[in-house]
Amino acid sequence: MKIHDWPTGPYPARVRIALAEKNMRARVQFVTVDLWKGEHKTPEFLAKNYSGTLPVLELDDGTFIAECTAITEYLDALDGEPTLTGRIARDKGVIHMMSKRAELELLDPISVYFHHATPGLGPDVEIYQNAEWGFRQRDKALRGMHYFDGILKRQPFVAGDVFSMADITVIGGLIFAGLVKLPVPAACEALQAWYAQMQQRPSVKNRVTMSKPIGA
Amino acid sequence: MKIHDWPTGPYPARVRIALAEKNMRARVQFVTVDLWKGEHKTPEFLAKNYSGTLPVLELDDGTFIAECTAITEYLDALDGEPTLTGRIARDKGVIHMMSKRAELELLDPISVYFHHATPGLGPDVEIYQNAEWGFRQRDKALRGMHYFDGILKRQPFVAGDVFSMADITVIGGLIFAGLVKLPVPAACEALQAWYAQMQQRPSVKNRVTMSKPIGA
Repeated sequence: MKIHDWPTGPYPARVRIALAEKNMRARVQFVTVDLWKGEHKTPEFLAKNYSGTLPVLELDDGTFIAECTAITEYLDALDGEPTLTGRIARDKGVIHMMSKRAELELLDPISVYFHHATPGLGPDVEIYQNAEWGFRQRDKALRGMHYFDGILKRQPFVAGDVFSMADITVIGGLIFAGLVKLPVPAACEALQAWYAQMQQRPSVKNRVTMSKPIGA
Repeated sequence: MKIHDWPTGPYPARVRIALAEKNMRARVQFVTVDLWKGEHKTPEFLAKNYSGTLPVLELDDGTFIAECTAITEYLDALDGEPTLTGRIARDKGVIHMMSKRAELELLDPISVYFHHATPGLGPDVEIYQNAEWGFRQRDKALRGMHYFDGILKRQPFVAGDVFSMADITVIGGLIFAGLVKLPVPAACEALQAWYAQMQQRPSVKNRVTMSKPIGA
């Protein structure tokens, strides 16, 4: 398998963390797609992923699987231990809900803020910007931090008692928040404490250096 | 189980179709949440689903599961036949990818268009609108129709040879497109032919009348 990604990207981090949690990193080669050069918007890359986003998993049969949740589902079905997407119906439902909520309320709004209300990847890549929308999304993400803080006040992980894909998605959000200098509010003590713990996990700590790209 | 939804809503349609495809409609009671009165934005409803969207599944133990993909995963894990989210790793990955792509490139942009560049649910509910962003999203959805047309030129269903959650998400997109009078372009013949077929499925045809709400 190959992963097409950008080593420090927040969405790529989600799959890198999932791979490490599942001890599957040795089964994957990494291919670097240079976001800052807009390589994810070239016709060649768009043929791999219509949406022009990273990461993309390339299977040995030539199938491309984009979208972090889809890739995580693939990896979980390939090798069940430890599971990141749940085993029984209720767990699967809650994990998928909380992961999607982390996208909707935290990670994706920060991405929109970055691409629309900051210089983003630079004028050659950011062809259209809507700053007003971008700032609205920043504010939404800050509200999202308070929401997840409330969740983590009453349970150790985002979807309950066990580490899951939902934690990884919130981690992706806070990685992106760090990159765009949007600190977690001081009042969000439970979120901060949880994130400090998450950053101690080898899968999170070593995600960038976990593997050299092909040809490096 | 209860489903909190609005009978004609495009996102509620996704779960209603999934329930019907799995022959599980008799196991569910429907509770109507009046979108036009903004009942999905009340504190009472937001406690059920922070994101303030429909549908929401309420389990008998009091757990609320929001987000159509999460609900579909729950239903599929509860009762495996027929599966909507795939059985083997590759199928799961492709179905989740295509369903997410249908959200990103079709259904969600039409929703943003509706809420931001049309009167939407009316001035009492649509407190903030960004029309420029809304029109951009309409154009993105039209491009998305051409993308799915290309997919359906070469295969019978959105994720390959079998009906799946990904088809349901595109159906949701085209239901919403119909509501906001955004017709499928005439050039998209494969998408139109596929949609005509989909509308013959009992799960799609009878989705609104499939069950009376509690108290009706």
